[in-house]
Amino acid sequence: MKRHKFSCKKKYKILISNDDGIFSQGIFALVNELKKIGEVVVVAPDKQQSAVGHAITMNYPIRAIPYNFDGNINGFAVDGTPADCVKLAIKYLLSEIPDIIVSGINHGSNTAISVIYSGTVSAATEGTILGIPSIAISLATFGTCDFTYAAKFSREITKLVLKNKLPEGTLLNINIPPISESEIKGVKITRQGKSLWDDTFDIRKDPSNKEYFWLTGNLKILDKDEDVDVDEIAVLNKYISITPIQYDLTDYKMFKKLKKWKIKK
Amino acid sequence: MKRHKFSCKKKYKILISNDDGIFSQGIFALVNELKKIGEVVVVAPDKQQSAVGHAITMNYPIRAIPYNFDGNINGFAVDGTPADCVKLAIKYLLSEIPDIIVSGINHGSNTAISVIYSGTVSAATEGTILGIPSIAISLATFGTCDFTYAAKFSREITKLVLKNKLPEGTLLNINIPPISESEIKGVKITRQGKSLWDDTFDIRKDPSNKEYFWLTGNLKILDKDEDVDVDEIAVLNKYISITPIQYDLTDYKMFKKLKKWKIKK
Repeated sequence: MKRHKFSCKKKYKILISNDDGIFSQGIFALVNELKKIGEVVVVAPDKQQSAVGHAITMNYPIRAIPYNFDGNINGFAVDGTPADCVKLAIKYLLSEIPDIIVSGINHGSNTAISVIYSGTVSAATEGTILGIPSIAISLATFGTCDFTYAAKFSREITKLVLKNKLPEGTLLNINIPPISESEIKGVKITRQGKSLWDDTFDIRKDPSNKEYFWLTGNLKILDKDEDVDVDEIAVLNKYISITPIQYDLTDYKMFKKLKKWKIKK
Repeated sequence: MKRHKFSCKKKYKILISNDDGIFSQGIFALVNELKKIGEVVVVAPDKQQSAVGHAITMNYPIRAIPYNFDGNINGFAVDGTPADCVKLAIKYLLSEIPDIIVSGINHGSNTAISVIYSGTVSAATEGTILGIPSIAISLATFGTCDFTYAAKFSREITKLVLKNKLPEGTLLNINIPPISESEIKGVKITRQGKSLWDDTFDIRKDPSNKEYFWLTGNLKILDKDEDVDVDEIAVLNKYISITPIQYDLTDYKMFKKLKKWKIKK
């Protein structure tokens, strides 16, 4: 397969991925804005991969199919997860390391507990693990939506990240309200709010009368401080939410306490 | 489907899950030890689900098939991810909330960066999100292995967690060396070490001469402090590694710094 060669003519080399799939509206909107500030290449799943978390494909092979955006943007559709896409892009499909990885624009918010289920965030996490500045961007609505402003903001924050740099091991998780630019009040730096999915399973029967289960549920917010990322607080109040994310999961408070348990072999 | 009813005769109600699948050797070893201290029910994937991270199944339905362990331990084989198994168990398959969830025993370590890819850890994370004390246990070898001591230690740490309790939002990630009890030197409380998978893709061709890619690679350790969980430090030095894990991913240092970026809408 022919690997992508950046032309070196444009200022920035930008890799775009997502979890909604390469055919999604949000990735097109992102490509169209980011190509204004750099050379864009897209490596994204060939189908919906929402809520795959940080899954990677080890037990099966994956494939990549060349895919053209507007005839002049190179893309590859991969039959894997968002993390697979980023790994394959960096390790094989691109001839050079990009300056930044932008994942999105997701259709639906990725805030609070959803961050750990999110494929959008996971593509950016994988980029960060590989040492590349990475950001995840979501439009906070599951309804019909207009990506215009979200894409424009994505362009500006991409420029800012390229200029200011991110600390090693840190990515930005950005959620944008689904309203027009004039309605947006500003930007809030947030922390990941506490919440859980109050799941239920819809119990159905197949034509052979056998039961199957379909996950459904509502996000239950457990944390309503004003600095949290949860939609009810930041996004529904018309602020763009930006949460810096890292992936050292150690609970350092408990790390100290656990030593007092004096656990024996 | 008939839901599992705990008999209330035994002291503890224990839910077991894993990511290696309900047929794996490690889950049998765990069941056989934990049934000594409580009533065990198993809800686990019907096939290998390693490295699925915190994936959940939203776009497709899932099924559960009753599965008997030794004729007297109830089990359900689920065609979903480890997180799906825990959700379905708690929300439908069990008539009561268990006292603890134990995920494992995984065949292979889950340390350092592997923690975020791990299905074993993700089953315990899902339990923790749902407010149930949860632990993840792995035997640190990918070779042939003997789960005897790891299962025995699992029983003891399960008792200790039930006695001492865990803070809300915290789980324990335990990695046990693949050696005999007499060779093990003790227990180390560890933090998640820095590392990355130095991935390569094996490039192959199918019978139609089309390329496909298979992920392979080695774990590259970036952090060799003596208190890290990484195999080279804790496990290969013959210590059991116990890392307290939480899932607030906010980077609080960057949270403060990011406010100074003065990002405009």
